[in-house]
Amino acid sequence: MMYTLSQIAQTLGRPVEGDGTIRFARVAEPAAAGPGDLALAMSPAYAEALHAGQARVAVLWEGADWRAMGLEGAILVPRARLAMAGITAALDPGPRMNVGLHPTAIVEDGAQIGEGAAIGPFVVIAAGARIGARARIAGHVTVAEEAVIGDDALLMQGVRIGARVRIGDRFIAQPGVVIGGDGFSFVTPEESGVEKARRTLGDQGEITQQKWTRIHSLGSVRIGDDVEVGANSTIDRGTVADTVIGRGTKIDNLVMIGHNNRVGEDCLLCGQVGLAGGSTIGDRVVLAGKVGVSDNITIGNDVVAGGGTEIYSRVRDGEVIMGSPAVKMETNMAMYRALRRLPRALEQLSELRRAVAGMTGGKRDDD
Amino acid sequence: MMYTLSQIAQTLGRPVEGDGTIRFARVAEPAAAGPGDLALAMSPAYAEALHAGQARVAVLWEGADWRAMGLEGAILVPRARLAMAGITAALDPGPRMNVGLHPTAIVEDGAQIGEGAAIGPFVVIAAGARIGARARIAGHVTVAEEAVIGDDALLMQGVRIGARVRIGDRFIAQPGVVIGGDGFSFVTPEESGVEKARRTLGDQGEITQQKWTRIHSLGSVRIGDDVEVGANSTIDRGTVADTVIGRGTKIDNLVMIGHNNRVGEDCLLCGQVGLAGGSTIGDRVVLAGKVGVSDNITIGNDVVAGGGTEIYSRVRDGEVIMGSPAVKMETNMAMYRALRRLPRALEQLSELRRAVAGMTGGKRDDD
Amino acid sequence: MMYTLSQIAQTLGRPVEGDGTIRFARVAEPAAAGPGDLALAMSPAYAEALHAGQARVAVLWEGADWRAMGLEGAILVPRARLAMAGITAALDPGPRMNVGLHPTAIVEDGAQIGEGAAIGPFVVIAAGARIGARARIAGHVTVAEEAVIGDDALLMQGVRIGARVRIGDRFIAQPGVVIGGDGFSFVTPEESGVEKARRTLGDQGEITQQKWTRIHSLGSVRIGDDVEVGANSTIDRGTVADTVIGRGTKIDNLVMIGHNNRVGEDCLLCGQVGLAGGSTIGDRVVLAGKVGVSDNITIGNDVVAGGGTEIYSRVRDGEVIMGSPAVKMETNMAMYRALRRLPRALEQLSELRRAVAGMTGGKRDDD
Repeated sequence: MMYTLSQIAQTLGRPVEGDGTIRFARVAEPAAAGPGDLALAMSPAYAEALHAGQARVAVLWEGADWRAMGLEGAILVPRARLAMAGITAALDPGPRMNVGLHPTAIVEDGAQIGEGAAIGPFVVIAAGARIGARARIAGHVTVAEEAVIGDDALLMQGVRIGARVRIGDRFIAQPGVVIGGDGFSFVTPEESGVEKARRTLGDQGEITQQKWTRIHSLGSVRIGDDVEVGANSTIDRGTVADTVIGRGTKIDNLVMIGHNNRVGEDCLLCGQVGLAGGSTIGDRVVLAGKVGVSDNITIGNDVVAGGGTEIYSRVRDGEVIMGSPAVKMETNMAMYRALRRLPRALEQLSELRRAVAGMTGGKRDDD
Repeated sequence: MMYTLSQIAQTLGRPVEGDGTIRFARVAEPAAAGPGDLALAMSPAYAEALHAGQARVAVLWEGADWRAMGLEGAILVPRARLAMAGITAALDPGPRMNVGLHPTAIVEDGAQIGEGAAIGPFVVIAAGARIGARARIAGHVTVAEEAVIGDDALLMQGVRIGARVRIGDRFIAQPGVVIGGDGFSFVTPEESGVEKARRTLGDQGEITQQKWTRIHSLGSVRIGDDVEVGANSTIDRGTVADTVIGRGTKIDNLVMIGHNNRVGEDCLLCGQVGLAGGSTIGDRVVLAGKVGVSDNITIGNDVVAGGGTEIYSRVRDGEVIMGSPAVKMETNMAMYRALRRLPRALEQLSELRRAVAGMTGGKRDDD
Repeated sequence: MMYTLSQIAQTLGRPVEGDGTIRFARVAEPAAAGPGDLALAMSPAYAEALHAGQARVAVLWEGADWRAMGLEGAILVPRARLAMAGITAALDPGPRMNVGLHPTAIVEDGAQIGEGAAIGPFVVIAAGARIGARARIAGHVTVAEEAVIGDDALLMQGVRIGARVRIGDRFIAQPGVVIGGDGFSFVTPEESGVEKARRTLGDQGEITQQKWTRIHSLGSVRIGDDVEVGANSTIDRGTVADTVIGRGTKIDNLVMIGHNNRVGEDCLLCGQVGLAGGSTIGDRVVLAGKVGVSDNITIGNDVVAGGGTEIYSRVRDGEVIMGSPAVKMETNMAMYRALRRLPRALEQLSELRRAVAGMTGGKRDDD
């Protein structure tokens, strides 16, 4: 498919500079752009790379002198990443899927599929499931009994939607996502060693041999509108109530959301984040890669946690945290800077103790 | 399906208080409970929420005055989580599966399926595989050649059981579990930089360009009775011997168990735990979320490791550990408290050095 | 299948000691070896175990006195792990697959499959995809439109290859691998709290309510020859350019490689490693289990990162690093040793401050 510069300008709500009729089939990084590409060079840092490439048209930073760069047309944008959203949405062909039911797909009696849906090969939609209009369901997806999915869903290959899961509109799930596995919840007949250790902060008491009995998951998973989930991530069902993901929240790959968590709206949960269970996460919370959240924690609104942060206790609204255990980012940095100085400081402490002992003539225990 | 309060009391081995004939279809959290629900309020902390809801019957903590709460019937239990196991087991409808072979399922010649098994759509059971009685195998599961699975297995959608894997009775695998992928094991012709760095604790010596050659996995995976594995977790096969998971051990989502690990009985491995390879884990070990275990480590019985702990060396029986690298929890907490005080302590040290230098009139190197 | 000692010796390029005609069906660990097994005991540490077993033939360390151990034949090898590669390659039966197209597999018009390929049950190869000669594609694999895979590929059950992904020869993917999920990339209309926090190292400024808009992934994934990917790992497509994995790189289970990363050649990425996005990783880099790499980082050639290392900034060629944040391993160990001493050092500091205060008679603020 071919696009004109004017089409993209219109998409972005920005004026065209130069020749808006120039056509291209794809976007490219500035240095790699050929004469038939739209170069993306939305920061002055790319000016040189643009010269190295052969683009005739480009999207540039605001104020860029596009003529001096030898271009024939350009769009100037004030916020690069926002422009990227518009450009990539316009050019994304999306996965190739055919409207209708693939002959190998199984839609059990009593399942409902909305108008205009595309259901791929070897898909299984169980009885009682309801899927909205214009759904695009790729090969090997399974949707279990009584699950409900809103309009305009995109479920990629091998996604598993469990029984009674309810999902809003415009849901996107990358391949291998599992929504509605059982929660991980077990109990021993008497108080277990791990329960005692948590209660006493470290003391298991007398050890007894006990087996784990399963607590079943009677709850399900409830997901709002405009949620996305990345490849091979898992969201477990709740024990009695549902596990909840709020509207607009985006979840990356290999993220683990345990049972009974309640995640707010417009959050970002990056790759390999893990929420143990039973925690409440506010709105607009950003958890960077590999962040871990212990169970039954409350995290306020607008919290930002840096990569690898481990959260064992309550976090207040708006805090920017880091480290293990999580503390405010500035505290974390101060502690770290001090730790870097510590080996030298211990030497100084020893010298000082010797000096003072010499002054007093007193005895001193060596460490 | 409807239940009576007496039925649940009988399941729990507890007496009914009040009217045992009251019927309900589901359990609910106290505040959300309607008049047709069984409220679960097994701690005095829920008393208020119970008032807010409309439940007529509830499961309560021992000693609760159920009549004063306006209930018509109740069951009082001494250990809430244990009661939860009984109640949820009684009410869980389980995944909906039909006994028999789905017409799209493929059972190769020479595969054996036990009596009363339910084999779902698009399942593939390879030649030489043996599956026990009453297995419930959901859609898209594959069981490879010569794999053996005991009685009463529950394999959810898309589970992959590799060749020659042997699994005991009552095995449960959530969607996307992979048992029997190849181990991650490679070697260079000469000693590699990483081998040198491990041997010298940091010095790679001269760097040489070498390619990795694969060490194949001839072993398989052996799993005892009553084991569960969570969504998208992976257990690799061993190189020569088998990777082993002991009876009664429960494994959460996105857990990675590398080749040649030997995990004991009745362990809990929580979400995103990773065992590199070749380690021996004792019985009743609890590894909280995101715990990592380096290769060829021995962990004793009854060890409890807190969330995010990284284990690089031997752990003795019964230790409660935390941190990176793992130390006893009390040591970890003492180190952390000291670190919090460190920035202030470094200032005090500087002041003290100035004071002592002033007293002696001597010279001092500044740091 | 049966093998002779001479066959294995020839594979390893080593002479046979004793009777090379002795036959065996499998290898075994020394203590577990029966009379029909080849024992693997390539270090003097196994001498005793060898006595406990019943092997007649063994692979031993260089210089071992095989006759004194009661063996009838042996192969002596200088580098045990390298010998393991040869032995296991010779004995691995590989997954059982039949050349040709399974009747339930779907190869869309316009897809090309090379000679001698084995395509398993319920596989879907989309239009425009090209798969090389002798591919072995297990059940439930999907290969999307325009994807290209070289010769001698082995794709295990349920692997997902996305649209336009290009992969070299001898590719191996364990079950559940997802190549070509969408990148995790979102933007708010105005600068978001997390952007501000990253720019200011901790200050989000005034909080505003904004929704995330998706940046689509127009790029794909490009993978060189001789790459392996472990079970349930995910590699996301790039935004404009491709995400790149260099020739010879090996990736373990549950690894997350975000969009626009460029990983070099002959790297090892161990279990649960995560690369956020946009980073450049050199050649021969080894990232041990659970290592995390923040976005837009440059890591040089021949870097070794210990388990759990978190990398937030540039790493130079050849560095051996550890910790969070990553520092040189020796620095990490010095910091850690100092931290272990810190609780006692703080006591000493207090004593010293009291002593000095006593000497000067001056006042002192207590902390």
